[in-house]
Amino acid sequence: LIQTLKKEVCRANLDLVREGLVVQTWGNVSGVDRARGVMVIKPSGVAYSSLKAEQMVVVSLETGKVVAGRLRPSSDTPTHLVLYRKFEDIGGIAHTHSLYATAWAQAGKGIPVLGTTQADYWQGAVPATRRLRTREIEKNYEENTGHVIVERFKNLDPLKIPAALVAGHGPFAWGKDAGEAVHNAAVLEFVARLAAETLRINPKAEPIQRALLDAHFLRKHGPASYYGQAETT
Amino acid sequence: LIQTLKKEVCRANLDLVREGLVVQTWGNVSGVDRARGVMVIKPSGVAYSSLKAEQMVVVSLETGKVVAGRLRPSSDTPTHLVLYRKFEDIGGIAHTHSLYATAWAQAGKGIPVLGTTQADYWQGAVPATRRLRTREIEKNYEENTGHVIVERFKNLDPLKIPAALVAGHGPFAWGKDAGEAVHNAAVLEFVARLAAETLRINPKAEPIQRALLDAHFLRKHGPASYYGQAETT
Amino acid sequence: LIQTLKKEVCRANLDLVREGLVVQTWGNVSGVDRARGVMVIKPSGVAYSSLKAEQMVVVSLETGKVVAGRLRPSSDTPTHLVLYRKFEDIGGIAHTHSLYATAWAQAGKGIPVLGTTQADYWQGAVPATRRLRTREIEKNYEENTGHVIVERFKNLDPLKIPAALVAGHGPFAWGKDAGEAVHNAAVLEFVARLAAETLRINPKAEPIQRALLDAHFLRKHGPASYYGQAETT
Amino acid sequence: LIQTLKKEVCRANLDLVREGLVVQTWGNVSGVDRARGVMVIKPSGVAYSSLKAEQMVVVSLETGKVVAGRLRPSSDTPTHLVLYRKFEDIGGIAHTHSLYATAWAQAGKGIPVLGTTQADYWQGAVPATRRLRTREIEKNYEENTGHVIVERFKNLDPLKIPAALVAGHGPFAWGKDAGEAVHNAAVLEFVARLAAETLRINPKAEPIQRALLDAHFLRKHGPASYYGQAETT
Repeated sequence: LIQTLKKEVCRANLDLVREGLVVQTWGNVSGVDRARGVMVIKPSGVAYSSLKAEQMVVVSLETGKVVAGRLRPSSDTPTHLVLYRKFEDIGGIAHTHSLYATAWAQAGKGIPVLGTTQADYWQGAVPATRRLRTREIEKNYEENTGHVIVERFKNLDPLKIPAALVAGHGPFAWGKDAGEAVHNAAVLEFVARLAAETLRINPKAEPIQRALLDAHFLRKHGPASYYGQAETT
Repeated sequence: LIQTLKKEVCRANLDLVREGLVVQTWGNVSGVDRARGVMVIKPSGVAYSSLKAEQMVVVSLETGKVVAGRLRPSSDTPTHLVLYRKFEDIGGIAHTHSLYATAWAQAGKGIPVLGTTQADYWQGAVPATRRLRTREIEKNYEENTGHVIVERFKNLDPLKIPAALVAGHGPFAWGKDAGEAVHNAAVLEFVARLAAETLRINPKAEPIQRALLDAHFLRKHGPASYYGQAETT
Repeated sequence: LIQTLKKEVCRANLDLVREGLVVQTWGNVSGVDRARGVMVIKPSGVAYSSLKAEQMVVVSLETGKVVAGRLRPSSDTPTHLVLYRKFEDIGGIAHTHSLYATAWAQAGKGIPVLGTTQADYWQGAVPATRRLRTREIEKNYEENTGHVIVERFKNLDPLKIPAALVAGHGPFAWGKDAGEAVHNAAVLEFVARLAAETLRINPKAEPIQRALLDAHFLRKHGPASYYGQAETT
Repeated sequence: LIQTLKKEVCRANLDLVREGLVVQTWGNVSGVDRARGVMVIKPSGVAYSSLKAEQMVVVSLETGKVVAGRLRPSSDTPTHLVLYRKFEDIGGIAHTHSLYATAWAQAGKGIPVLGTTQADYWQGAVPATRRLRTREIEKNYEENTGHVIVERFKNLDPLKIPAALVAGHGPFAWGKDAGEAVHNAAVLEFVARLAAETLRINPKAEPIQRALLDAHFLRKHGPASYYGQAETT
């Protein structure tokens, strides 16, 4: 039901606040219903304190037009649409201006895997996109923001690298649904800060070994994972 | 009514606390009523915990004299007066000693536009003033603080650059009213921290492209803005 | 009674949250009952908000097998077992991903004793281990994590240096029981941040004098201690 | 009455917690009654959560002996005594391990006056002492800690510079009574962080001009002050 997705997306937007990722009213979360061909997203510029599920806006995945809801969708809607169209296995997207992830994006640098904390979630560095070109900014800016992310992932699997940093702008994180997208955005913020502090202590700190990276990612993800409880527990 | 402005200015002062911008009792917010030719400002050195609207002090914009209120106005009153006289379209001013904005002021450096977060509020760098000269300090110090800000804005539009950093002192932010001044002071603090963290990650980080700066500022401000909800919503 | 130890270990795990050391669900605390030959540890991947004493898992110190409890023990269980077997006087272990201690671990650097705060708890630097070798990662990874800690302590007394930083991973702290292990993990996090800030202010800051290090450690620990109240008070 | 001073000192110790200056149980505040020749100080190693006025310990200013109270006084008692004996106009002392002030102490560096925030409280840099010599540590360590502070203030006025950083240890702040000592310790922590952030943004940041330093200190302190409300208000 579309009502269920609206509630889920509204709750995920409020989780952004709970996780300390929201500064002022910035940031937005969406979720997708691929069977119906629609995306549900936060309305533009509405205060989180008064956010309600019925205010969520339903947008056609194909046309980008609002199909239900009386408010304007987030101004970043075209970015979300491009990501859902190109990354066919993701179900939710979270965009924030959280401090440390945004600092890395402004620095135009990807976050190297300096420890197992990042390896538990990303099977590699968190990549930064290139800067947009002037004509990409002047026309269809938000859509082109999606395109530079997709371009950056040409040889990367978005399920194994569930976030990107848009140069000069900020992070986009995703997951199997809106809730997981927000969880990944929260871990990204921690990992961004952790990497910054690490390099301050040792500017020559090296990424961890490939074997350690894979061991940690795979003990949490995939068929051989052994973290947490078995489903039947 | 002057009572309405007093309430608004009192609330804006308390918002400073809520936004985490107040350290001890430092900082002050004012609002102006240009039709009546008066400014309303926080009394000097009064604890925020017991601040009441009736304690706000009313000062003549022309003479700088207290025209109503039993308490002394903030010791920074002459700075506010200069800004209202010279920046004719602003309606509120907030002065804080918030950590990161004050650090940039102490560093004597303007905050470069390293990302879209700053571009959403400032159509350029947040400028730092020059240091005051000895004679400017020894006589009419607070008034001269206003003058160095105005001097720095000779070729800048205060509505497009709604804050300044006074070298060796701290930030002044402004807006169309006292509430917006506090909001801009809060965003300034975030942007100041964000820029500091960015340059720590990449000391060679470059300001964003002019096209991106304008696109972000203009999607939130001016006739072609498309952020948030239409007024009729 | 094993129930008492379960309660103590559960409480110590919740103290991790109270001390601000928990990020998401990461981290785990255990306690040992050497008379019974068992270790009690947090179950794997269970949210702290719903953690109960009866969920704690009892593991044989000798075989490493679960002897009581329906849930899987923490995936770091083999690391804890190695430490209890080799450090015969410790009674509790806490593993966290707290920000600054993890940053030092990722930096691959021990924390030098730059002041008396650290000397009150560690009679020397907090040591970092070497990186694990590929074959140590590919087989018995968690057990080998314990071994590199023990290897690093060849010439160190674990009671006088109650924590280690595993390179590229994070901190393990210990103490006479689970509660003290968590206390030491909390102090470690503070000391890690303090050392990082100190070196930022003065990159050439030197460790304190040996006499001062010993004076502070010994005024809190051992027969000549004179900090706090006498037992009879 | 001695009960009044005990309450005041107890409240000031709890204010340390409220100001966020307490880490674990570290830190202590005292107040003096020069007419009676006694100092009142926190007992050693007692948790702040259960601190009561009747637990405060009364110590003779002349002999250093406990004259009332059943608990041991803070282990830093001899340091406080030296300061009261040598700085004859101070009435309260606060010692903390607050993060940034302690980092400057560990760095062995005084805090330069980089802005007006510090100038409002200190008419100059916050000085760091020299390191103690081995024999000063091995015998009468806490007393000698007081002596190196006094030595550092040979040409400084403790009322115009109400704090010192003991090299490799941490800050001591003071004031006209215990409450003001804690207030100064809180401002010191802010100023310590502010200076660290400033120098990170601009490692060549210069102290403010002498005229500005004096103008700010004197507008808050001394006969010509004009900050706050007149006493009769």
